[in-house]
Amino acid sequence: MPEFRQNLATREWVIISRERAKRPEQFKVRTERPELPSHDGSCPFCPGNEDRTPEPSLVVPASGSWMTRVVPNRFAALDAGLSPERHRMGRYLFAEGYGIAEVVIESPRHDLSPATMRDRSVAQVLDCFAERYRAMAHRPAINLITIFRNHGPLAGTSLEHPHSQIIATPIVPPHVQDPINLARAYFNNEGRCVFCDMASEEGEVRVRIVEETESFLCFVPYAARSPFETRIYPKRHSASFWGTTPEERVELGGVLRRALGRLHGSLNNPDYNFIIRSAPIGDEDVRFYHWYIVIVPKVTTPAGFELGAGIYINITVPEECAAVLRDTEPVEVRESE
Amino acid sequence: MPEFRQNLATREWVIISRERAKRPEQFKVRTERPELPSHDGSCPFCPGNEDRTPEPSLVVPASGSWMTRVVPNRFAALDAGLSPERHRMGRYLFAEGYGIAEVVIESPRHDLSPATMRDRSVAQVLDCFAERYRAMAHRPAINLITIFRNHGPLAGTSLEHPHSQIIATPIVPPHVQDPINLARAYFNNEGRCVFCDMASEEGEVRVRIVEETESFLCFVPYAARSPFETRIYPKRHSASFWGTTPEERVELGGVLRRALGRLHGSLNNPDYNFIIRSAPIGDEDVRFYHWYIVIVPKVTTPAGFELGAGIYINITVPEECAAVLRDTEPVEVRESE
Repeated sequence: MPEFRQNLATREWVIISRERAKRPEQFKVRTERPELPSHDGSCPFCPGNEDRTPEPSLVVPASGSWMTRVVPNRFAALDAGLSPERHRMGRYLFAEGYGIAEVVIESPRHDLSPATMRDRSVAQVLDCFAERYRAMAHRPAINLITIFRNHGPLAGTSLEHPHSQIIATPIVPPHVQDPINLARAYFNNEGRCVFCDMASEEGEVRVRIVEETESFLCFVPYAARSPFETRIYPKRHSASFWGTTPEERVELGGVLRRALGRLHGSLNNPDYNFIIRSAPIGDEDVRFYHWYIVIVPKVTTPAGFELGAGIYINITVPEECAAVLRDTEPVEVRESE
Repeated sequence: MPEFRQNLATREWVIISRERAKRPEQFKVRTERPELPSHDGSCPFCPGNEDRTPEPSLVVPASGSWMTRVVPNRFAALDAGLSPERHRMGRYLFAEGYGIAEVVIESPRHDLSPATMRDRSVAQVLDCFAERYRAMAHRPAINLITIFRNHGPLAGTSLEHPHSQIIATPIVPPHVQDPINLARAYFNNEGRCVFCDMASEEGEVRVRIVEETESFLCFVPYAARSPFETRIYPKRHSASFWGTTPEERVELGGVLRRALGRLHGSLNNPDYNFIIRSAPIGDEDVRFYHWYIVIVPKVTTPAGFELGAGIYINITVPEECAAVLRDTEPVEVRESE
């Protein structure tokens, strides 16, 4: 029997289509990816080509061979030199494309990804996210900071060198604000954060949990929009990634590496996006919102119904995806000590 | 200079990235599609294979060779035999997958599409949409009817025979309801329908218009989310496609055929989705909402920033896309009289 399931936070519905359900292994990537070299002389992100990127905003470690480099995005869609002022164009509203876009080069090695990096290297990338988040949050008129990673062409990137991105905008759009408003209404009704409640629910029923650590819960959401969607929620209530402690980021480095490593292992290195969602700048201490990571493997194609109604048809059962991920060894770490 | 532009109705923002802007011809599909036969004996939608689809809900004309056939979707994600009741599953809400899903086989010919059909055949498809909409709207607990078309694999279909779909659900999700609430607030403020206002704006500035007829405006929206997004608004205020007259559908048949024909001509038959958006059932007479068609060619890949922030980066300028479409002859009609 097909069923509608509602996302408790956003109130969006999905259809879990058991009739059309495919066995999880059918989502395995079948085209072999070319083996990448550990260094590519033509890659702008590889060591030796540092002059091909703009001046870095952060290099770790500060001296000696770098492990992580953060640079302004040379092909940025936004420009930090513009104005955030809104104007009218006839009946419409517009603004100059003010914003900050940076690229986090996650490793000097061309052939790694967070799934194959050491936990502490992933944690170092997370530390860079936190440091740049803090710096951007203090720039004028920045109201939202989105951290994300595009892995592979179906996820919107063609650059193979491991990297993620941070984009800071003056705008908090309805796509972000509407779920926050719903979370506030839930809090006002129930007296609890809706994300804390979801974490409690998942912790009790356990059927969708992939991994639980001291501070984090990694699970397939009840109303997953697509096969193998995975979320990582911090157990400690906090509205912004900005508020994570260094110790939490060390732990999260391992949780994120293993979550991506399990996807890599079970689906043969699928394309994916991950996003770190946080409350807008200034809302770090609100009691009703909760930062989290969502990982979306790009293994199906949204069609007109998804675009039109916003109701995603998921042809896998979240509990089965969670079981597959739980039972999969994360792909082997390839970064040496 | 990049710019933010706001969709007046949904309040969502896009980034128009002039720096990264590509010339429209760069979005031309380069892989040659195989020439399709006009009849394919293995196709379940071709004449002669009528026994391979469930009993039709509508056949036009009613006797003799059919031109349009509407059949229940054999691989439907929803089931009309289930219950629309909502239940709790722990803290979550769910319901059986009650709903109606039908396929509109648009032509007996395997090798056509609405872009290459005669205007009056497209109008006949629209008549079938209207008739089935009416029938589904009267079924118990149906609250939303979404009409859409998936053209090509990037748009979510692999079936080549020309067809579109209608899905009726008991659920009106936030993705649909939130913009309607905003349209009501706009009406309460301004005293006018926001879509009527957008049509007025486009009619005045004219730079984004592709075609204007007596009753319809075909244009590239000011805040287009992706290259060559095209909309068709009825000039007469009406909240639901259900309210169209047969005369309007005759006119719309030509407008839709030419809009798709221009996309086909300028981008070499790209994959696309189109969606007919209407108010929920029971809201047909509201003064603040307006039905319309949106056509989204699938020529770019949304990435993590789009997923995370809901801010789409459009690497074309809507006014330039409109100019290209205006100057393109629709692809030749291949259906004989």
